[in-house]
Amino acid sequence: MKLDEFFKQPNEWMRGEGPDSVIVVSSRVRLARNLRGFAYPGRSKKDDRTKVLEVLNAAFLQMPELKKVFSESLDNLSPIDKQILVERHLISREHAAKGVGSGVIINEGETISVMINEEDHIRMQALHGGLQLKSVFRAIDKLDAELEQLVDYDFSERFGYLTACPTNVGTGMRASSMLHLPGLVLAEQINPVIQAVNKLHLAVRGLYGEGTEAMGNLFQISNQTTLGEKEQDIVERLNKVIHQIVEHEINARASLTEKRPQMVADQIGRAFGILTNAHILTSKEALNLLSLIRLGLDLEMFQHLDRAAVDELFILTQPAHLQRSVEKKLSPEERDSRRAELVRKKLHKARRTEGGAQN
Amino acid sequence: MKLDEFFKQPNEWMRGEGPDSVIVVSSRVRLARNLRGFAYPGRSKKDDRTKVLEVLNAAFLQMPELKKVFSESLDNLSPIDKQILVERHLISREHAAKGVGSGVIINEGETISVMINEEDHIRMQALHGGLQLKSVFRAIDKLDAELEQLVDYDFSERFGYLTACPTNVGTGMRASSMLHLPGLVLAEQINPVIQAVNKLHLAVRGLYGEGTEAMGNLFQISNQTTLGEKEQDIVERLNKVIHQIVEHEINARASLTEKRPQMVADQIGRAFGILTNAHILTSKEALNLLSLIRLGLDLEMFQHLDRAAVDELFILTQPAHLQRSVEKKLSPEERDSRRAELVRKKLHKARRTEGGAQN
Repeated sequence: MKLDEFFKQPNEWMRGEGPDSVIVVSSRVRLARNLRGFAYPGRSKKDDRTKVLEVLNAAFLQMPELKKVFSESLDNLSPIDKQILVERHLISREHAAKGVGSGVIINEGETISVMINEEDHIRMQALHGGLQLKSVFRAIDKLDAELEQLVDYDFSERFGYLTACPTNVGTGMRASSMLHLPGLVLAEQINPVIQAVNKLHLAVRGLYGEGTEAMGNLFQISNQTTLGEKEQDIVERLNKVIHQIVEHEINARASLTEKRPQMVADQIGRAFGILTNAHILTSKEALNLLSLIRLGLDLEMFQHLDRAAVDELFILTQPAHLQRSVEKKLSPEERDSRRAELVRKKLHKARRTEGGAQN
Repeated sequence: MKLDEFFKQPNEWMRGEGPDSVIVVSSRVRLARNLRGFAYPGRSKKDDRTKVLEVLNAAFLQMPELKKVFSESLDNLSPIDKQILVERHLISREHAAKGVGSGVIINEGETISVMINEEDHIRMQALHGGLQLKSVFRAIDKLDAELEQLVDYDFSERFGYLTACPTNVGTGMRASSMLHLPGLVLAEQINPVIQAVNKLHLAVRGLYGEGTEAMGNLFQISNQTTLGEKEQDIVERLNKVIHQIVEHEINARASLTEKRPQMVADQIGRAFGILTNAHILTSKEALNLLSLIRLGLDLEMFQHLDRAAVDELFILTQPAHLQRSVEKKLSPEERDSRRAELVRKKLHKARRTEGGAQN
């Protein structure tokens, strides 16, 4: 399977389907694992890393859920292709910087992906649209159980799974959901919510995980601790908190449309006006404005505008996707211009239904 | 003639006609005069002011050019009506604060207006669209000559016409043109131009004269000195400088559309997108964005958009005009919402012709 085939159509979670998908864009669980008897990637030599890559590739590729996959060593991927995988949340930014001895495996639909020799020997994730942390956990848990039959994990009876960084020791699990919270942001209630979530030992991060800025009103909520709590309990707890945040977002939207309808119509209208008329658009501005269009769709303020098309634009406007679509490297200025063109084209049939330019 | 009749249709200069009217919105000459034997308004008692008002009203109203006029004592005008006159550049903001003993006379078409008992007994102006300083000067000079037959001006052989403020002594004349300079602003060349103009002892001011901010890329250029130079020479000199600024603006536009077409399309596109979709619009933002629409019209980037309609919006979006159109006082929030609605309605048929949302 070639990388190109991945990009012909949107993947599973980009279609914006799944439970509570109006607010919960996607859910993900990743596990960190290491093989006993091999130095961890940060300290291993090239030969060791290559050996680990071979062993793991052989093991993963005999699993039934990974029959139709894209599997590649990172030294065979161009910088743009690696960046594409980052933008699709299939590998980390750190992994994209790796070369010989590091690899990636991605199934069809992009619901399962594996990084080999990132910070740990194995980082494997399951990713689905909507709020489905439990089923996502089951999917990756099954893969983990199958792999454990084939390789020897570095495991301590006292600590659990051992990992390169102590923050992952224990379950080695990071469960997270990506939430779209424009209502809480517009109502200026997002900060109290983030503070409350942090007090529950859960982390709130931006679109591309740790250390990244919140753009497009997208917030990733994940567990911070991996020690002293069972996987199912972590998932259960996270799931409950996310349900509460979804409630808050729904209430914030209801309150805004009731008490400040002009402000909401103004913000969404301006976003629409700019996206359909700008000729220069940075990826950050595009995300922030697309977020308001997505909110406008939820509030039924548009006609002739497909929700999936908008969700897809969140990814297609990212720098690497943009360059891949024109099959050449572009300067930042060229990208901003192409991005504006792409967005204008995709939105050109859309019309506002309420109080908009047509009235 | 009632005040209402003035506002049924745009006045002469708001129609955006006249020589060089693409860049020069309007030209104006005002003369300051005082009557001998009466204390100047700043120091006169109510009875004196009323007497001066009577004398001058009687004199002005027998002149042939002021046959069909609006003439009123300022204590009979509502705050909104006074503000309307300010927004139409017919009286000053200072005059709008006056009451008993101050008056205003405006001819049909609003090409001639007189303030009685503002800072001086008489401030009379002629105002036309486009660059027509010479004909505007002739119009007000004729009125001045006629009035001089009827009243006794305070005049000194040594200094010329005497005025309340020494900066007006001599000719008592302020000649000015309002220029629309979005090209120089976008090209970031406006400051050197302003500095050069200042060195020629000409003043550059904002939309509402002294002490006001430049909004909508509109700049008023006027003479600063009134002493030691003949009226015709002042007008001649100002006219020459304005012709040069017009040249600079034309060059800036040509250079921008040649070298930075994306930036120009982006700025004009965004302005169009916001104006046709916003639901909250301050008068300042409206002016700044309408300025870019006006530039877009000059560059033939719109279809189904009437230039006069855009020029009219520069005035109709001002606070008092907006309130008069709905016949009630509005809070600033209500104004911003009504303003957005008005602009959306007026622009709803317009389409971008080049590289815009339709492509």
